Amino acid sequence: MFHEPNTVRNCIYVINYKSHIMSLIEALKWRYATKRMNGQKIDPVKLDNILEATRLSASSIGIQPYSIIVVENEELKKKIQPVAYNQPQIVEASHLLIFAAWDNITPERFDEFVKDLAEQRGTSEADAITQTARYREMLLPRAQEVNHQWAARQTYIAFGTAIAAAAFEKVDATPMEGFNPEGLDELLGLKEKGLRSVTILALGHRDETNDPLASKSKVRRTKEKLFLELA
Amino acid sequence: MFHEPNTVRNCIYVINYKSHIMSLIEALKWRYATKRMNGQKIDPVKLDNILEATRLSASSIGIQPYSIIVVENEELKKKIQPVAYNQPQIVEASHLLIFAAWDNITPERFDEFVKDLAEQRGTSEADAITQTARYREMLLPRAQEVNHQWAARQTYIAFGTAIAAAAFEKVDATPMEGFNPEGLDELLGLKEKGLRSVTILALGHRDETNDPLASKSKVRRTKEKLFLELA
Repeated sequence: MFHEPNTVRNCIYVINYKSHIMSLIEALKWRYATKRMNGQKIDPVKLDNILEATRLSASSIGIQPYSIIVVENEELKKKIQPVAYNQPQIVEASHLLIFAAWDNITPERFDEFVKDLAEQRGTSEADAITQTARYREMLLPRAQEVNHQWAARQTYIAFGTAIAAAAFEKVDATPMEGFNPEGLDELLGLKEKGLRSVTILALGHRDETNDPLASKSKVRRTKEKLFLELA
Repeated sequence: MFHEPNTVRNCIYVINYKSHIMSLIEALKWRYATKRMNGQKIDPVKLDNILEATRLSASSIGIQPYSIIVVENEELKKKIQPVAYNQPQIVEASHLLIFAAWDNITPERFDEFVKDLAEQRGTSEADAITQTARYREMLLPRAQEVNHQWAARQTYIAFGTAIAAAAFEKVDATPMEGFNPEGLDELLGLKEKGLRSVTILALGHRDETNDPLASKSKVRRTKEKLFLELA
């Protein structure tokens, strides 16, 4: 006999199981650094979800010291390709996300962070200034290059989150460091915006016929090699 | 009348919905940089899952140029606390994950990567050497500090993945840069292992009574501010 309540319970059990971290582990196993894409556009809802997860990613003191440039235009992608060693996925991708770190933590940027914090937490600006004073004292006097390098590392947290989010959506992605950052900054006018490009995430769909990596198994250091347990 | 097939279809619909990226977005909204933890141990299965997701995280050329030190011992946590500005979550956490980047990409480390690649892909070592020759040529001649800084950035991808994985497991986490890396390296003997500590992820469970951040809303730059669309 078919018994409804049990089915519902089983169903909930399955839901919990699938909403669980296993889906992240599965997504990470499915993904790979896609070298050839098929030019197919990605679903705009999926793009929005990837961007939203990226926007929510962790960031030291919550300041998110970077911008993410979204490129869909075909002509612009063709211009970007030569500064990225002519890699085919630049033009075969549906969208490029260019992760660009702040060149410095300026007083204006810090003030905007404090203003956002006051607004989003519903506190007074005076309180927000007090709450963030020690971060201001830490960041603002530092050398520009120190702040930029710190911002670049923070960018990699968002980059890692975007890679996982794309895998979740079964959108293929190529995490790319292989490009000339100065050339890209010049092409996109990033220097004037106080930004320096750090990484690119090409989003699209794999071309299984032409991508030799598509069929290769993932290589990862074993648990025994990667983790050290200290007693 | 209760109609089984429809229920099963609805159930599958809900499963798909929940296994979807929304669970990542929800997890990222739930998490925050926990400042006080309650000392409760985390479920060992959850810890394993977090470590497995971290192990699978993206890495340039797949080399994963870092180690992750897992610390559970209470005495060791007490010794770590002073090099981390006496922050309470160091000892209130269940486990600390210390992300330590390679100090350099040495020929020995590269050889091990090539060996792992041959083993895990089932190809000959000669083929694996050929396939990775251009990476060897790129990485090995670089200055030690350039390679370390690159390794440190790679470490942040794994760090970002670990943060997301912990959120998925509803395990609280504190991403920490606020410690003295040289002091920690000395305490743990990391220098001798060719490692330099970069970040700490404290894992545990939030102490809602004593953590003023627990009830505060998340502050993130708006979509309009964070993303630049270039036509």
